[in-house]
Amino acid sequence: MGANDKEFVKEITPRSVDFSQWYLDIVLKAEMMDYAPVKGCMAIRPYGYAIWENIQRLLDQRFKATGHKNAYFPLFIPESLLQKEAEHVEGFAPEVALVTHGGNEKLAERLVVRPTSEAIICSMYARWIQSWRDLPILYNQWCNVVRWEKNTRPFLRTTEFLWQEGHTVHATEEEAEEETLKMLEVYREFAETELALPVISGLKTEREKFAGALRTYTIEALMTDGRALQAGTSHNLGQHFARAFEIRFLDKDDELKYAWQTSWGASTRLIGAIIMVHGDDRGLKLPPRVAPVQGVIVPILTKKQKEQVLEASRELLARLGESFRMELDDREGYSPGWKFNEWEMKGVPVRLELGPRDLEAGGVTAVRRDTGEKIFLSQDNLEDSLEKLLDEIQQNLFQQALDYRIANTRRASSYAEFVEILEEHRGFIQAGWCGERACEEQVKDDTRATIRCIPFHQEHEDKGICLSCGKQGEHLVYYARAY
Amino acid sequence: MGANDKEFVKEITPRSVDFSQWYLDIVLKAEMMDYAPVKGCMAIRPYGYAIWENIQRLLDQRFKATGHKNAYFPLFIPESLLQKEAEHVEGFAPEVALVTHGGNEKLAERLVVRPTSEAIICSMYARWIQSWRDLPILYNQWCNVVRWEKNTRPFLRTTEFLWQEGHTVHATEEEAEEETLKMLEVYREFAETELALPVISGLKTEREKFAGALRTYTIEALMTDGRALQAGTSHNLGQHFARAFEIRFLDKDDELKYAWQTSWGASTRLIGAIIMVHGDDRGLKLPPRVAPVQGVIVPILTKKQKEQVLEASRELLARLGESFRMELDDREGYSPGWKFNEWEMKGVPVRLELGPRDLEAGGVTAVRRDTGEKIFLSQDNLEDSLEKLLDEIQQNLFQQALDYRIANTRRASSYAEFVEILEEHRGFIQAGWCGERACEEQVKDDTRATIRCIPFHQEHEDKGICLSCGKQGEHLVYYARAY
Repeated sequence: MGANDKEFVKEITPRSVDFSQWYLDIVLKAEMMDYAPVKGCMAIRPYGYAIWENIQRLLDQRFKATGHKNAYFPLFIPESLLQKEAEHVEGFAPEVALVTHGGNEKLAERLVVRPTSEAIICSMYARWIQSWRDLPILYNQWCNVVRWEKNTRPFLRTTEFLWQEGHTVHATEEEAEEETLKMLEVYREFAETELALPVISGLKTEREKFAGALRTYTIEALMTDGRALQAGTSHNLGQHFARAFEIRFLDKDDELKYAWQTSWGASTRLIGAIIMVHGDDRGLKLPPRVAPVQGVIVPILTKKQKEQVLEASRELLARLGESFRMELDDREGYSPGWKFNEWEMKGVPVRLELGPRDLEAGGVTAVRRDTGEKIFLSQDNLEDSLEKLLDEIQQNLFQQALDYRIANTRRASSYAEFVEILEEHRGFIQAGWCGERACEEQVKDDTRATIRCIPFHQEHEDKGICLSCGKQGEHLVYYARAY
Repeated sequence: MGANDKEFVKEITPRSVDFSQWYLDIVLKAEMMDYAPVKGCMAIRPYGYAIWENIQRLLDQRFKATGHKNAYFPLFIPESLLQKEAEHVEGFAPEVALVTHGGNEKLAERLVVRPTSEAIICSMYARWIQSWRDLPILYNQWCNVVRWEKNTRPFLRTTEFLWQEGHTVHATEEEAEEETLKMLEVYREFAETELALPVISGLKTEREKFAGALRTYTIEALMTDGRALQAGTSHNLGQHFARAFEIRFLDKDDELKYAWQTSWGASTRLIGAIIMVHGDDRGLKLPPRVAPVQGVIVPILTKKQKEQVLEASRELLARLGESFRMELDDREGYSPGWKFNEWEMKGVPVRLELGPRDLEAGGVTAVRRDTGEKIFLSQDNLEDSLEKLLDEIQQNLFQQALDYRIANTRRASSYAEFVEILEEHRGFIQAGWCGERACEEQVKDDTRATIRCIPFHQEHEDKGICLSCGKQGEHLVYYARAY
């Protein structure tokens, strides 16, 4: 490692020293974002936004394949509409931004900048739905939302963020529950396949559910500092909003009934999850399926063969650019070593080194970001080899994250054990819970750990005792400190 | 035409009776939008939003092909930032929405909901640009913006609307001008190719330019009520914002210089243009390249062969759905005639009628929305035939719109003639202009017609005399009443 290289890596705080600073160093240095001159807001720079574009494309395909259509509803919600559903307003009113003036005049009614769109969308659905023939309604919207957060962190919790929110309406409770679970499964499959993020699916407790929902389901991922992150949620809204907004339909049996609803969302915080699950002390490690740049070509230039190597590099870019998201780093004035470090920091899955020797041997040297392994790839079948390599990297990132999660999921059979695990390791802690809110809150107050979810399929598990009250556990839940 | 059909068409006001009401009838009845419970805001329903998704996809491809990357900047702009560029604040301050409270507290500084993003983006660019190596910056963002409008109309002028805004930075004046014109040309080619909208490209007058720009270029389309619509603008910002926001770079000659900037935007008002250029008294006529549904299959069912025809219709949907955006209308309880009317109203370019006779003849009957022509398409090469047909429709829509514009572009050589044309025909009126703002304003005050643009390549044209002052014209301009 040359002097140059040391300089470079020094700029990122090691995870072991300060994980939080490591994260901030990376998002700034990799030019994913920058702080904006509005408290808690950020500018998402092209390298960060390109990941979001890939997330959007891959999620949107899945939404459409499951019969959903996109629509767009207003940014502003009259304050009185937000107040219609009691739990909803209680949950969101403390964190909204309010528009009080428009066009130089004070408004008769204050407008809430949407923190989520149930209220405005339900007011429209009430007009659009009359008959069972109008159901189901399966809409989604991609938009920005604003929640006035006290403590913010890039991508993970910002005053304004980007997300999608699905809003569906159904004739029966069963259909709404089916939709809620279907979309949770879409999130799980998406997170695991495309982001290489292993997640635990399950139900949120009453305390942690969405404000206004009947039930909230979640997918929870484990970051490499041992803290959990909620990566997507799907809510069965029951008839709560239908009753508040008078969404009724004439059913086949000629009876007027309240509709059943769901909503589900995933946001730019997924980018934060990718960083914290896969990154290391050298920087980002991006899963190939969402990486803005899947492979970077770095020409290794010698005085004698400079033009020849550059020409071959350009040809390689043109060839591979047909099938992959590629870059050629032909900047002058930077050493190959400096470029290697920069692209490693930016998490590009594969570096292709092309020098006189590679040319002579009729191929290119591939270096994996995830393992550092060097592999010579022949020009013959280069596309196939690269595709295979990217698939392997994607799989390996998932496997590493899964191994980490398994190694960092522990069972606590007593409160003392629970606290010890939390202090020494963090991670997911499986423990019994009696189902009482008071017990859940006591654990949170004592330890800052919350119930992340009640996982599916635990019928045959030994639930153990409730951490707090010591009674027989009703559920075996996942506890963790969370983002 | 059966009783049912008459009923159906009756719901749309004829254009000749009330063009404005015709437009509103269509956007509501085709379920493109609905009014929201916030003044001047609308909900864009899936059928309208799907057009926007196609516009986004096709424009975004062009932006990326010309080297641009997407990013995302905050919704909120501190009031003091908006005030930095004098002309900019003068233009936008009267129509902004203001956030004064966040998280239950009054804010120390009021926040403007972006009406356009020059101010917030320039504040970031000032941090990101130090050296000529950082240039050019070629960014675009897709987002919502808010302008507090007094008179609103769906898609054409709404308080909140969706758009894209490109913001680029360059080292020289020449590069900025080149970029400005390049993006105007991208808009022109896009509008003509994808939306079948013929446009006039040219320069805006000082009076009509963007608040803060050095020069604004525009593409102007003519609606079938004879009014013009600005369909996209590209601004050379000069160094106006660079000086206000201190965007400087160290050039190759080691001198610190202010940068040169451009911005350019197109919005959901393009959907309004599509409606008003192509629609007729039966409803929408959507250009195939952006139509949410390119072809609809309507099975013609007889008692005897019902199942056979339905089965063949489903097969046809599966087959054509591979290459085209298709729907099958197999709803029960609606006559084929009713369905024909509904899909015509929704502007679907091609209807495919499939009945026992078509089955027997080994094909399907295609009916063009633009001409009403019926064409039998054989199952052999059906994909090719349909693609060819859709291309022909796209071309024909463009040609019809171009013919209309040519027929409705007239030259006025005196003020009396100008007023007469305006009263009798509206449309574009070519006339001389001396270049003085006073003359431009007098014509506007008298007639509500504005100079839409100073077209390119008029060096060898006879400019005639200025309408207002009667002096020799400096330019031959396009006047029109506009949206």
